[in-house]
Amino acid sequence: MTHTLVASATKEIIIGFDQPFCVIGERINPTGRKKLAAEMEAGNFDTVIADALAQVAAGATMLDINAGVTAVNPNETEPPLMVETLKIVQELVDIPLAIDSSVSSAIKAGLEVAKGRPLVNSVTGEVEKLEEILPLIKKYDVPVVAISNDETGISEDPDVRFEVAKKIVEHAADYGIKPHDIVVDPLVMPIGAMGTAGQQVFALVRRLRNELGVNTTCGLSNISFGLPHRHGINASFIPMVIASGMTSAIMNPCRPQEMEAVRAANVLVGTDANCGNWIQTYRDYKPAAGGAPVAPVASSGRSGGRRGGRAARRGAT
Amino acid sequence: MTHTLVASATKEIIIGFDQPFCVIGERINPTGRKKLAAEMEAGNFDTVIADALAQVAAGATMLDINAGVTAVNPNETEPPLMVETLKIVQELVDIPLAIDSSVSSAIKAGLEVAKGRPLVNSVTGEVEKLEEILPLIKKYDVPVVAISNDETGISEDPDVRFEVAKKIVEHAADYGIKPHDIVVDPLVMPIGAMGTAGQQVFALVRRLRNELGVNTTCGLSNISFGLPHRHGINASFIPMVIASGMTSAIMNPCRPQEMEAVRAANVLVGTDANCGNWIQTYRDYKPAAGGAPVAPVASSGRSGGRRGGRAARRGAT
Repeated sequence: MTHTLVASATKEIIIGFDQPFCVIGERINPTGRKKLAAEMEAGNFDTVIADALAQVAAGATMLDINAGVTAVNPNETEPPLMVETLKIVQELVDIPLAIDSSVSSAIKAGLEVAKGRPLVNSVTGEVEKLEEILPLIKKYDVPVVAISNDETGISEDPDVRFEVAKKIVEHAADYGIKPHDIVVDPLVMPIGAMGTAGQQVFALVRRLRNELGVNTTCGLSNISFGLPHRHGINASFIPMVIASGMTSAIMNPCRPQEMEAVRAANVLVGTDANCGNWIQTYRDYKPAAGGAPVAPVASSGRSGGRRGGRAARRGAT
Repeated sequence: MTHTLVASATKEIIIGFDQPFCVIGERINPTGRKKLAAEMEAGNFDTVIADALAQVAAGATMLDINAGVTAVNPNETEPPLMVETLKIVQELVDIPLAIDSSVSSAIKAGLEVAKGRPLVNSVTGEVEKLEEILPLIKKYDVPVVAISNDETGISEDPDVRFEVAKKIVEHAADYGIKPHDIVVDPLVMPIGAMGTAGQQVFALVRRLRNELGVNTTCGLSNISFGLPHRHGINASFIPMVIASGMTSAIMNPCRPQEMEAVRAANVLVGTDANCGNWIQTYRDYKPAAGGAPVAPVASSGRSGGRRGGRAARRGAT
């Protein structure tokens, strides 16, 4: 059984086929959020703090941390800002973090200060990227998200994307990095632009799981890009990828419809033992007008009955 | 490609792997609805009419018709009441119907008056049942729901349920009935009582599709029996069974959360061409408080871009 161990200073989480779906909160990311970018650049972390607390309260399993405030001189600005953001968030919340950057020096700086066992997001199949990131993964003994594109870009052919993922896993093995420390992102295309995007991901996730034995993740909301009522599409895509074997996603945990889909899918694949988390979350549920779901009572950071501490570490293989 | 053709007097629908999910409206069924049973027994069809119209407006593809008002003398009461109910509903709506009874004489009476090509619901693997129902299926050239239990009851072992389904398909072949006219119900157990109930169904549906080449259906809401906020569980179960290859379900189309899940899953498996039905249904969508879904504008009986008429009949194989 593939188990990817991630940890904060005090809490361990397992990503795995037999574990509740790992929700990686995406909100702390200035990409496309001009106000947040300006705040972070000015040293104001009020929104970062509010987003961290809100995502934990909504039930996030981990938090993604991205400090890419500018494309002008990221090699200078991003490493210190990543360090500062990580320090603030890891003092504030107890769940594991992902160090998210396309700037290798920012990842390195983040790894130097992050407590526990953070997830690095990400490496691609590009040779230069592999040679920059994989030594860091080995040195700090942390897991990494592997994105299925390389120098040729993102292929629309899922077989090519599978081969890129396989190449990264093999390349990592050369560094002594095990498949259970690679979390593959098969890349989700917008269904509105490519009608086969859903079926591609379902098939790819099954292959990645059966043939490479790796955990998987994705930028979930890409699937609904350009469509009306995106949350409805996202909330159906989640059970489908979970039924296909996906084990985590980078997504917004503050959307009740999507989080309800995660919790229900955990029940339906049998990773919410005795439906315990579902019953605890929805036992007093009252539907809104029209029979529609509403936000449940804040779950105070529970992460779905995951195991922590020694048992979890022993379970990591 | 397996195509099951069902039809009213004027409208043909294909159930198939390449078609939008077939929603069989479950509401016209007095089982467990004492008031409706009393009304129907007294010759009052007001609720039947209201339920028929509401289900069509909500987007049902077909309507299930059950006239089992009493367990006392069903052989006498059910056949004429089935006939009367069918006549009323088929005058009222233009979508195909399912003749639903455990009383073989009621199915026979229904087949004599039903227009088009109704679906018979159901036959089991019990020898006596097979010998009563299959000759009717052959004589009237209609498709039938095959439920995966037999004289030994409902097995908790999915392999046994698969073998029962296989036995029914083989038995039907002896009568000259093709697999595309058998719609197998693999039987959905409550997930609250059996933690593997979901995984069982996903695996069974894939086997039924790949090994027997049959369409599938289920009583969908069984999955959430006994749990709080059942609609949340149902709405995640729908995309999962659709991703596994299920092609229809007997369910309540008047629940916006479940119907939204059906429409989104159709988009995600590629049976809603160019996302046309989704965009038409949700283009003016406004989320309710809390970002939750509400009922879309009534869809006036659209059935998701299905083909009708000659093209559909030619497509049935």
